[in-house]
Amino acid sequence: MLAMRTVRFRDETGIARTGELADETIKSGTKTYDFKAIDILPPCEPTKVICQAGGYMDHREESGFEDLPERPELFLKGPNSVSGHGDAIELPPGKDLVEFEAEFGIIIGRQCREVAADEAMDYVDGFTCVNDISNRDDQELERNWVRGKAFDGSLPMGPVIATPDEVPSDATLTLRHNGEVKQETSREMMIFSVAELVSDVSRLITLEPGDIIASGTPYGPDALAAGDVVEVEFEGVGTLRNHVIER
Amino acid sequence: MLAMRTVRFRDETGIARTGELADETIKSGTKTYDFKAIDILPPCEPTKVICQAGGYMDHREESGFEDLPERPELFLKGPNSVSGHGDAIELPPGKDLVEFEAEFGIIIGRQCREVAADEAMDYVDGFTCVNDISNRDDQELERNWVRGKAFDGSLPMGPVIATPDEVPSDATLTLRHNGEVKQETSREMMIFSVAELVSDVSRLITLEPGDIIASGTPYGPDALAAGDVVEVEFEGVGTLRNHVIER
Repeated sequence: MLAMRTVRFRDETGIARTGELADETIKSGTKTYDFKAIDILPPCEPTKVICQAGGYMDHREESGFEDLPERPELFLKGPNSVSGHGDAIELPPGKDLVEFEAEFGIIIGRQCREVAADEAMDYVDGFTCVNDISNRDDQELERNWVRGKAFDGSLPMGPVIATPDEVPSDATLTLRHNGEVKQETSREMMIFSVAELVSDVSRLITLEPGDIIASGTPYGPDALAAGDVVEVEFEGVGTLRNHVIER
Repeated sequence: MLAMRTVRFRDETGIARTGELADETIKSGTKTYDFKAIDILPPCEPTKVICQAGGYMDHREESGFEDLPERPELFLKGPNSVSGHGDAIELPPGKDLVEFEAEFGIIIGRQCREVAADEAMDYVDGFTCVNDISNRDDQELERNWVRGKAFDGSLPMGPVIATPDEVPSDATLTLRHNGEVKQETSREMMIFSVAELVSDVSRLITLEPGDIIASGTPYGPDALAAGDVVEVEFEGVGTLRNHVIER
């Protein structure tokens, strides 16, 4: 697979295009576009989003290490959860605690069913930045995290999909909240590797091109308020930036 | 809305069509087809499936009545869960307890967001039969019911979508397991009405045409084994029949 970083965007005529990003310039066909001047779209259109809860050693360390899971803990979001780079995160009305969770997303490139871990990377298009917005008021009241995590716009993602070889095995995942670093971890701290995650999910759910596995968050989620700016940066991929408004 | 019962199917040339069902004959354009001789498809193609857990008074009565919920309890399935009338239910390998759950599904007809209950029926295309296949081995081990309920083929549905006026307010929902009635309830036993369910979900998740709300099951889910035949009948709609095989 050719190493590259791609962006999906709407050009000046309104057409949705995909282009290759180098520095701040996007090349699509014979044209080039300024990344900062165009309308960035979510980098893919998933039919479903499979999320891992937790998933990092440093998250487990906080809680005492004893309960290392035998397999990934999963939950789901629908396509309605997806929004893009630069889009507003709308706070669900009347909730006291809505938090960010920095993650990276694994983008599926071709249909994937019951694949072994040592073949799983053949089905992965690349990685993107994800923010798993969580309404704790409701999440704490429910068994399945639907009201808490699957509401419209609860998964800002993008702006870039970087092919796997662009992302070091110890890539740093960072969340900045109004400029301050609140979450920071290394891909090396993942309990299950990307290949193990894809393989595990594929034994249960057939993955389609554009589907996303949101790979979980480390320690340190925190509360969002209207006016905040929140950034998820994943080394080798780029930075997802969103601002927060009241709905 | 015109009262009718529709079926989606593949005609003799392989084209997916929708037609109106009367007795055992489907009328589509100028042609008619024999319901029993054609390849029935799932009646719609949801972008997401929102399911209610429980939802019937007679289910709550078993457990002592005290915990009537203030709002519907929800969980999610993806499009990969959908299969159709006549399709095989594949038992997930190596599991001891996989059960049926008779439900009816609410099919969304047009995009629906933040609608009041007294307007919600304007967004409903009709009702179909649903079987919420549940792998209890995994469901009991997880917080979110993904391994337990969202695996490929875990939501057989169809074959008919009947417009709401075809379905009495006290319509009977019946499940037959190898010919024996195992679940039977009335729509009157629902804790939340169809309109309340649609309104509630629409405040959280934008519903798209073809999306389904699986409205929950009454008492009496039971174990499935290879070779079984399981039927979900909803009065005014029809009967969903599936057989069970090992995967």
